[in-house]
Amino acid sequence: MKKSLGAQTLVYPTPVFIIGSYDAAGKPNAMTASWCGICNSQPPSVAVSLRKATYSYDNLIARKAFTLNIPSEDQLKVADYFGLVSGKNTDKFAHSGWTTVRGEKADAPYLKECPLNLECRVLHVFDLGLHTQFVGEILDVKADESVMDRSGLLDIKKVKPIIFAPDTQGYYSLGSFLGRAFSTRELPKVEKG
Amino acid sequence: MKKSLGAQTLVYPTPVFIIGSYDAAGKPNAMTASWCGICNSQPPSVAVSLRKATYSYDNLIARKAFTLNIPSEDQLKVADYFGLVSGKNTDKFAHSGWTTVRGEKADAPYLKECPLNLECRVLHVFDLGLHTQFVGEILDVKADESVMDRSGLLDIKKVKPIIFAPDTQGYYSLGSFLGRAFSTRELPKVEKG
Repeated sequence: MKKSLGAQTLVYPTPVFIIGSYDAAGKPNAMTASWCGICNSQPPSVAVSLRKATYSYDNLIARKAFTLNIPSEDQLKVADYFGLVSGKNTDKFAHSGWTTVRGEKADAPYLKECPLNLECRVLHVFDLGLHTQFVGEILDVKADESVMDRSGLLDIKKVKPIIFAPDTQGYYSLGSFLGRAFSTRELPKVEKG
Repeated sequence: MKKSLGAQTLVYPTPVFIIGSYDAAGKPNAMTASWCGICNSQPPSVAVSLRKATYSYDNLIARKAFTLNIPSEDQLKVADYFGLVSGKNTDKFAHSGWTTVRGEKADAPYLKECPLNLECRVLHVFDLGLHTQFVGEILDVKADESVMDRSGLLDIKKVKPIIFAPDTQGYYSLGSFLGRAFSTRELPKVEKG
């Protein structure tokens, strides 16, 4: 039996990403966002939605660039903090002890402490209502050697990304390997009732 | 030490959603997609990117509506299958035994078997390159009573959403509860080096 829960922003999984940017004067900021996702394969692009009231919104408009940083579950407190306070009136870096590195490809700072960092330049800005969506071309992905295996592939179990449940506002860890994608060309025959 | 992995569509977590739609003649289709995410709070909206070559693309253009269905990890094989074969030349429903229900709010069919279903109407269509992004207003969320608790809230541990690692093409389960969001207004004082 299905129950209606009404019109709400509810999907599982929702990501926990930290958006890095410079303001017009060159001061770095970091803000946690979950209204995000890959949106295109060619050019490789990721969509990030921000409210116009945020400091980061002004930064992305001014610089046309951002980084997307993926925190590990060990970094949950900092990720949560970066989503709660505004860089307008708080020095998030002094309080967290986290450090930024100037991007090589994009005019934005990435977070050294996060295991995975994407450098992006803004290709499109779509005003959707409360949120504005920034579509960024992914110019480079950087990863800590500590989360890669010997063959140079990332190990998601070492990255330990955080999963967010938007309705109950809970954070969850990544679980176990379930199977290989693009492997089910046929299903077992269905019994006719 | 950071290593560059080049320009690629790589974030963790990436979702596994099944997009439901009708074609111009009213035939239902279901297609698995991962280039998706919530993109706006008001109006509540979700973004879904599809390649123009897909059957579902034509359906969303024709009907201006879709459903977003969240499969459980127990349904991994069907979700994987729905992403591999095309409804143009295969009857996915006959092969899977899955059934559709006409949406109450949107001109699209939802998948009865999935624990969570969103009904959406297309507000925007953005041509981004290989993929076209459909921004859908979420008109209703429906859930199986079996994944809700006594107070009517969803239990993500019962939904058991699937997480996709796009680089290594692996599927993963949801892990354990880590903490409550929006709770870290202050961080422990950082030791100065």
